[in-house]
Amino acid sequence: MAGSSIGKNIVLTTWGESHGKALGVVVDGFPAGMKLDEEDIQKFLDRRKPGTSPATTPRKEDDKVEILSGVFEGKTTGTPISLMVRNTSQISADYSEIANYYRPGHADYGFDKKYGFRDYRGGGRSSGRETIGRVAAGALCSKLLSEMGITVCAYTIAIGDIEVDYSKFDRAAILKTPTAMPDVDADKRAMELIQNAREKQDSLGGIIECQITGVPAGIGDPVFDKLDALLSRALMSIGAVKAVEIGDGIRVSAYNGSYNNDVFTTAGGVVFKETNHSGGILGGMSDGDKIVVRAYVKPTPSIAKTQHTVNKAGENIEINIKGRHDPVVVPRAVVVVEAMCAHTILDLMISNMSSRSSSIIEFYTDGN
Amino acid sequence: MAGSSIGKNIVLTTWGESHGKALGVVVDGFPAGMKLDEEDIQKFLDRRKPGTSPATTPRKEDDKVEILSGVFEGKTTGTPISLMVRNTSQISADYSEIANYYRPGHADYGFDKKYGFRDYRGGGRSSGRETIGRVAAGALCSKLLSEMGITVCAYTIAIGDIEVDYSKFDRAAILKTPTAMPDVDADKRAMELIQNAREKQDSLGGIIECQITGVPAGIGDPVFDKLDALLSRALMSIGAVKAVEIGDGIRVSAYNGSYNNDVFTTAGGVVFKETNHSGGILGGMSDGDKIVVRAYVKPTPSIAKTQHTVNKAGENIEINIKGRHDPVVVPRAVVVVEAMCAHTILDLMISNMSSRSSSIIEFYTDGN
Amino acid sequence: MAGSSIGKNIVLTTWGESHGKALGVVVDGFPAGMKLDEEDIQKFLDRRKPGTSPATTPRKEDDKVEILSGVFEGKTTGTPISLMVRNTSQISADYSEIANYYRPGHADYGFDKKYGFRDYRGGGRSSGRETIGRVAAGALCSKLLSEMGITVCAYTIAIGDIEVDYSKFDRAAILKTPTAMPDVDADKRAMELIQNAREKQDSLGGIIECQITGVPAGIGDPVFDKLDALLSRALMSIGAVKAVEIGDGIRVSAYNGSYNNDVFTTAGGVVFKETNHSGGILGGMSDGDKIVVRAYVKPTPSIAKTQHTVNKAGENIEINIKGRHDPVVVPRAVVVVEAMCAHTILDLMISNMSSRSSSIIEFYTDGN
Amino acid sequence: MAGSSIGKNIVLTTWGESHGKALGVVVDGFPAGMKLDEEDIQKFLDRRKPGTSPATTPRKEDDKVEILSGVFEGKTTGTPISLMVRNTSQISADYSEIANYYRPGHADYGFDKKYGFRDYRGGGRSSGRETIGRVAAGALCSKLLSEMGITVCAYTIAIGDIEVDYSKFDRAAILKTPTAMPDVDADKRAMELIQNAREKQDSLGGIIECQITGVPAGIGDPVFDKLDALLSRALMSIGAVKAVEIGDGIRVSAYNGSYNNDVFTTAGGVVFKETNHSGGILGGMSDGDKIVVRAYVKPTPSIAKTQHTVNKAGENIEINIKGRHDPVVVPRAVVVVEAMCAHTILDLMISNMSSRSSSIIEFYTDGN
Repeated sequence: MAGSSIGKNIVLTTWGESHGKALGVVVDGFPAGMKLDEEDIQKFLDRRKPGTSPATTPRKEDDKVEILSGVFEGKTTGTPISLMVRNTSQISADYSEIANYYRPGHADYGFDKKYGFRDYRGGGRSSGRETIGRVAAGALCSKLLSEMGITVCAYTIAIGDIEVDYSKFDRAAILKTPTAMPDVDADKRAMELIQNAREKQDSLGGIIECQITGVPAGIGDPVFDKLDALLSRALMSIGAVKAVEIGDGIRVSAYNGSYNNDVFTTAGGVVFKETNHSGGILGGMSDGDKIVVRAYVKPTPSIAKTQHTVNKAGENIEINIKGRHDPVVVPRAVVVVEAMCAHTILDLMISNMSSRSSSIIEFYTDGN
Repeated sequence: MAGSSIGKNIVLTTWGESHGKALGVVVDGFPAGMKLDEEDIQKFLDRRKPGTSPATTPRKEDDKVEILSGVFEGKTTGTPISLMVRNTSQISADYSEIANYYRPGHADYGFDKKYGFRDYRGGGRSSGRETIGRVAAGALCSKLLSEMGITVCAYTIAIGDIEVDYSKFDRAAILKTPTAMPDVDADKRAMELIQNAREKQDSLGGIIECQITGVPAGIGDPVFDKLDALLSRALMSIGAVKAVEIGDGIRVSAYNGSYNNDVFTTAGGVVFKETNHSGGILGGMSDGDKIVVRAYVKPTPSIAKTQHTVNKAGENIEINIKGRHDPVVVPRAVVVVEAMCAHTILDLMISNMSSRSSSIIEFYTDGN
Repeated sequence: MAGSSIGKNIVLTTWGESHGKALGVVVDGFPAGMKLDEEDIQKFLDRRKPGTSPATTPRKEDDKVEILSGVFEGKTTGTPISLMVRNTSQISADYSEIANYYRPGHADYGFDKKYGFRDYRGGGRSSGRETIGRVAAGALCSKLLSEMGITVCAYTIAIGDIEVDYSKFDRAAILKTPTAMPDVDADKRAMELIQNAREKQDSLGGIIECQITGVPAGIGDPVFDKLDALLSRALMSIGAVKAVEIGDGIRVSAYNGSYNNDVFTTAGGVVFKETNHSGGILGGMSDGDKIVVRAYVKPTPSIAKTQHTVNKAGENIEINIKGRHDPVVVPRAVVVVEAMCAHTILDLMISNMSSRSSSIIEFYTDGN
Repeated sequence: MAGSSIGKNIVLTTWGESHGKALGVVVDGFPAGMKLDEEDIQKFLDRRKPGTSPATTPRKEDDKVEILSGVFEGKTTGTPISLMVRNTSQISADYSEIANYYRPGHADYGFDKKYGFRDYRGGGRSSGRETIGRVAAGALCSKLLSEMGITVCAYTIAIGDIEVDYSKFDRAAILKTPTAMPDVDADKRAMELIQNAREKQDSLGGIIECQITGVPAGIGDPVFDKLDALLSRALMSIGAVKAVEIGDGIRVSAYNGSYNNDVFTTAGGVVFKETNHSGGILGGMSDGDKIVVRAYVKPTPSIAKTQHTVNKAGENIEINIKGRHDPVVVPRAVVVVEAMCAHTILDLMISNMSSRSSSIIEFYTDGN
């Protein structure tokens, strides 16, 4: 059954494999009239491009995006926007061995059980390269959100046991540090940790946080399409993510209600909350505060160290995985988190346009 | 926009408010031929029924389910199964004040911003009573899964700072302890903590874990419909859940890959994993191991303590919430977690029936 | 797989069988703030109620609707509206024979092949009573459309070979004639034809037309969600409908383009078409003109005449169907057609609210 | 809102404009393991290729398909299959005038009202070239159906007033005659009619029929996802189709029930129907007989004759449409009809695999 689409109003469908001809996304339902060129998308893709620092795989890919449809005279037309990136640096030979065994920590075994066989080259469909489509689509959503004063900003807050110090939060650093940390000191220490892990033929995980500001209250649906439920699905659908939390997240389980409840208050006609334990979401709807969500990322499963596993013939074997791998996927996953959040928010904001019958009536009696 | 449905093959649509006439669910797409009577459902509903212990609200509701359609001669017919529970103990008067202000930690403010007004009685649509429909539907899914040897079992592992000791894990205790903990000692201490919180007019949160055994490898889709992505959405859509994790979850962010990778091994022709950091899910698909998922639940926002907030007129006020509330929702939410997991797993297992063209061809050439 | 829901923004899910406890619909996604009481719905249901004329089955059902959720203080809340009608006049004994054979012209054989067995009482899920939920939901959609100046009006244009004379079109007659024809003369002749068919233990078919006025241009999507594609699906999903046409429909296949093309013209600043062969839809989108759609309805398959068929044991047998049946379903199906059209139009109008990025930006920067 | 996707299990998403860089489709959910190469698809695309006879536009396009993903080692992998055709013969200059006025019979006016502007080159998204993606996807579905003994065969039965004589039905002729008629005599006369229409700067419509054999009984859902409802939507979503009928279709409205009911009978243990007025569908499910569906196609709206219309400035003007157009789209639409039917049938057959709980249990206890 189909499982490569997400969204209700703006539906993203990604396609492509790590070592196939190309990868891409179809963005269906994106509203008409927004200015868009390839550079708008490229600058997002460049943030997840490999080969840019010692923190990433040495595979070199330009990841140049091509807009194939849905844009005319520099503006979106309202029809499907098809975006494609050609693969150029496939070295499939690296992967020929993988065909015969199941890499620990990878989806290989599941693929064979589900489909009967698999495109084993570079992880095939399970490759991180699948996220190219997500990031390209996220660039569009972020752009439209920004025209409404909404900012979506993700960054690394931990790699291994190195954590960002919020008192040193420097937003400008996010796009400059190789770890995408907003704290240059933590970044330095994290890079050392990464270098160390690489030398030990091992890998690291980490934590990504995303803050979304400017979202009006009431976005999201009270039951299954809760804003936090859809954010969770969106983030947990990113390859290596193993946990998602909203606001104070796991910590709230040990709080008292009197502490966890954020007090509503008002000043100058504006309603706001004195604290934000809720992470900007109450009862599945935005509460007007900053939305804060965190994704916990596992260490890259592809490591150079010798590992034990089973082959297709059902024998216990020792393996040494070849190929080019990231010692930690966190820095490159930051923009993926940002993209998925941007899409989720925009999609739910569109849904909210018809929450009230009066809005519909006004829309159609105002000459639309 | 519609947001009260979940699922692709078996679609659940819940409806109803805390203090309306009734609540229910339509289960569309449930396969034909399964034996079903009201008792099968009632025993699940009784696990979330209020008024059964000092850990719950004193509101008394029998929550008797009525099967309105989709069952004939004691078996499901394949057509929509409509299940309804009448509300009988509404005391709306308790809630008249709430109409005019926004309770901290609640969805009130979001509701007003989204819809322009709200059914304020007992939380309306945001009430925990909405989960009646989920639990009723989950009972059906669990029953069919059990006929395939799959068990879905949820339980409380923490309330406040009281944690279950896994070395004392007693599965039989889950249905007997008022906290739904599988450890009678921890249960006793948790009940004391709850009593204490109640006396302080305060509330508690906790953690629910769900284990699913017997799921074959390969269930789930590699991209947006990952098994863990859909489990996350399902669990995060439960009112008070603020974080979800799979397997070692948040802890994996600090692991090394060489530790986190579960080694595949084989003995007697069976492939299995030596460890289960993955929580039974790799690359979005089941890996054949036990599936382990955890939901972090916030403390009940309705507390008797005096609180500050804002009213609809935009004034800062002090409030004392009346009504009947749970000091902790965790024990009653356990069966809701179990229901949502059962539905997610069954729905994805059905999707997998058409993963291979050979399966489809065999199905139709075997005389079906 | 689930198949009892329709719609994208406003999702209708019907449930219930002819001789079960009740039938109903959940309307999810209906916007908040519209005034609604049971009488608004009842007057639609009364148009399809049986037992009101010699043209219908003698089965007596009050078909009183109960609003179970989603309405508070006389207004829709934006949450699911659950509507139910209890069955009161089931005489299942009439149907016990049917369990063992396949009625010609009915779904019995398909049901057994698909599900392995069936609720044979009164057609079970395939009964015309399933449309109660559609009509109830359609009442809501029609009401909101009417607040935007859009009217949806269906009527009978033929029964057997008796056709309405458009020169005698009397809109007021539609709700008065037992055939729902807008022409009292044709109605009289049709009633005679029906009486005649009944005496011969036979049945009749006919044609229903629906006109929708006031729909702005541009509603519908250019590809799979074309306005005419979704209208076709909606109408063909009504039990006895075997053909659907838009505007001049089947006749256009023999036209020349120069005749079929409706000329756009303008006068007083208003753009309009000089003719309406298109039936108000071009390229899948409304063209601003009156939308005209027609459904061709087959004769009731349940006839009293002796018929030949096969039983479950695989024997050729003769049958005489008992039970209470309509000699023609057309008059009662008129309001069903109207309901399905109203829902389709409203659902697509909501979709159009986000067709332009400027509309979204304006919506959110106007303080919504 | 998104509207370029169709299907539940196998979801097709088409993209691309007539004069953009390329057109294509993503086929998501197609089962793994089917042999597939570009030639399998190309032979379907060649049936809709322009420039092959006097019945088509002189625009020359090779329409060479490229498989970008989802196929590995010559077999489908179960992941999204991305198919693309580059546009090579765009002559946009032909269309520059169109930007400023609304062509009669076209979607131009609706596009401008919906989206605020449009890609006017060659009809943009509304071009018949959009169906390239449908045909490519249909090739895949037809191939898998054929492996189950199911044939989907569409052909022209009328162009203008020239109708096929069923007594001369020659299946082999369909792929040979320029009109795709199964009757060489009718084809000759139709080609003369087309030549005549072209000389008069006019255009023609026609009728396409599709027969599907080998479908087991019980496919389709009894309510909104009726087999005929989904076929109708699929066919009516093809640009120029204005009516759809199943079996005897429009004629049944004048039948008596005793004539219209197809008698079930049995011989040699096989159940069959003595007649097929139903067109192989009863109550929304296949009845085991041949499925027969017909689409009525309007005359090409682009004609060379002088026409009157309105321009964007709101003035009444005279126009002469340039560009390369088909005098009749019917012959090239035949394979589109076939593609849409193949997809609809296969998608619903997959849905039926989970109609019975016993099927699911067997699937998972047979070692899958």
